[in-house]
Amino acid sequence: MKSLYRKELLTVQWRRNAVQIIDQTKLPNKLVYLRCTDHREIAKAIKSLVVRGAPAIGICAALALLLVTINSKAKTEKDLKTELERAGGLLISTRPTAVNINWAVKRILQISSSGKNVKEIKRLVKREALTMLNDDILTNKKMGRTGSDLFHDGDVVMTHCNAGSLATSTYGTALGVLRAAREDGKNLKVIATETRPVMQGSRLTAFELMHDDFDVRLISDTAVGYVMANKMIDKVIVGADRILCTGHVYNKIGTYQIAIMAHIHKIPFYVAAPVSTFDLKSSISEITIEDRSPEEITKIKNIFIAPKGINTINPAFDITPPNLITGIITELGLLEPPFQRSIDTIIRRSRRY
Amino acid sequence: MKSLYRKELLTVQWRRNAVQIIDQTKLPNKLVYLRCTDHREIAKAIKSLVVRGAPAIGICAALALLLVTINSKAKTEKDLKTELERAGGLLISTRPTAVNINWAVKRILQISSSGKNVKEIKRLVKREALTMLNDDILTNKKMGRTGSDLFHDGDVVMTHCNAGSLATSTYGTALGVLRAAREDGKNLKVIATETRPVMQGSRLTAFELMHDDFDVRLISDTAVGYVMANKMIDKVIVGADRILCTGHVYNKIGTYQIAIMAHIHKIPFYVAAPVSTFDLKSSISEITIEDRSPEEITKIKNIFIAPKGINTINPAFDITPPNLITGIITELGLLEPPFQRSIDTIIRRSRRY
Repeated sequence: MKSLYRKELLTVQWRRNAVQIIDQTKLPNKLVYLRCTDHREIAKAIKSLVVRGAPAIGICAALALLLVTINSKAKTEKDLKTELERAGGLLISTRPTAVNINWAVKRILQISSSGKNVKEIKRLVKREALTMLNDDILTNKKMGRTGSDLFHDGDVVMTHCNAGSLATSTYGTALGVLRAAREDGKNLKVIATETRPVMQGSRLTAFELMHDDFDVRLISDTAVGYVMANKMIDKVIVGADRILCTGHVYNKIGTYQIAIMAHIHKIPFYVAAPVSTFDLKSSISEITIEDRSPEEITKIKNIFIAPKGINTINPAFDITPPNLITGIITELGLLEPPFQRSIDTIIRRSRRY
Repeated sequence: MKSLYRKELLTVQWRRNAVQIIDQTKLPNKLVYLRCTDHREIAKAIKSLVVRGAPAIGICAALALLLVTINSKAKTEKDLKTELERAGGLLISTRPTAVNINWAVKRILQISSSGKNVKEIKRLVKREALTMLNDDILTNKKMGRTGSDLFHDGDVVMTHCNAGSLATSTYGTALGVLRAAREDGKNLKVIATETRPVMQGSRLTAFELMHDDFDVRLISDTAVGYVMANKMIDKVIVGADRILCTGHVYNKIGTYQIAIMAHIHKIPFYVAAPVSTFDLKSSISEITIEDRSPEEITKIKNIFIAPKGINTINPAFDITPPNLITGIITELGLLEPPFQRSIDTIIRRSRRY
């Protein structure tokens, strides 16, 4: 493993007219970079969780549209815009719950609409997509600054799924806050949940925190209540895939029950998410929760761990209501309850997209 | 898979002076029977979860002591009793949390103490061990009768771990109740949790319920809150590894958090356990919760699903407090809150062992 750790974890990069991503399905055993030169390759990578994490797939969607403009043979701006819209639709369809793809596609389409000719559109899309990539790390560092004060030296922090470097271009959202706290001289310990079925906790969070020399321990998702009841956890921090204007947080399946248990055991429960994660228009009834393949539960590689043909219920996300959340950490500051008001004050007023 | 299903699931049997058990580490892919003729083989099988489930390992311990008497070359009753005591100690040390091994060993040693010579001890131990094996199924059927009335036609029932045929000699405790309800003409649906890290839910419960043509669906342990919040569950039923006089229930890791969520979502939470599961003497501080190997979490077969060398917290059990429990189903009837009183009235007064 040591040799893997020497390389830097740059999850999404733009290199020589291609999107270079870490293939997260190969972790923690192999660190493999994948080079994509076509937006359909990106869509496939998002769909199959080669790249995942709300901010990372948002950035990938923007870069995928940049690839569309590079590969396009369109002669008119109308044709190019049609190509971009079609590609945007494909990208949005890959993961219906996370809002960041919508955000990124909307932002690129909006910019492209101001272009007067093919050349100008290509230039504008390139500038915007690369700005979004660069902004991602700045956003994460600002979130880190916002959140660091909430954590104290010696805290043991539980996290679920992966809201780290591997969920963004780099640095991370929830794990970015822990990095910032450490940069501020605080010694934190982390307990990572495995996060079945896709095991982002054991495969990704454990991997990336060991890479950065954090004191990290891994537990099964069944042991959350046990460690909380035994007073082994001081705080919980997770990321988010979509946050509504009411403060309802869509995040990885299992987040809701961790929030319930944190509430019961009086443990502060924080969400770290950039402004791009907020969906101020939709209501719960309008949002689809992705039901993924049974094979995520029944097989690991080629080993069956359940009887063949068993039916499953495999939602990718759940909804944590605002009453279970202590605070939402954003790059614009900490949102506190009542969230409807703080989201309205801080997020709505700042939003261009 | 079909061919496996045609065979009967007899988890623990006594056949031609040997204990025959199903090797549960091979399920759901292979149905393999293991023949043990030495008590040390049984101890190893219990330790490595080849056989598991509180009632099943209790019965196995009794039969292991029967093997001691068969294999013994002791000339005096004192020597034979010493051999039995030593073997009993070994068996108890295999799984410190489940009380049924203690119960079985104590019961066999008590019987053996009344034997006046080697031959009589051997005869008494044989009769007692085989009675215990036969009683197990009768106990399960009585528990089924007690519990059936609590379930209604059309109920969707969540269960955790495996408290079925595979956790007893046959028929099961929690799943025995569901079998009894079905025999009473009720159509039940089951949602089984995977039960990481050892996956008794996906490997064993899903397997045994498909075997018996139950409508069973499998979920990740992370989806418990989701299915409850979406009103997909009417009742929860689980087994137990040890129940204290206060009504505190030791059961598979993850039970406690399911009980919390059932409580929050106002879903009845039942425990099914034979009288042999009750420990009326110990207090919480006296009971060790087994911390098992990191490899249970980090590896599946030979595949690493977490970084090598990661630290883990891997408790095998947790404690569900009585205030989260709706009722405890036993072969002597239904225990209702306040449990301290109902346990005192029904269990303590009935106990010989």
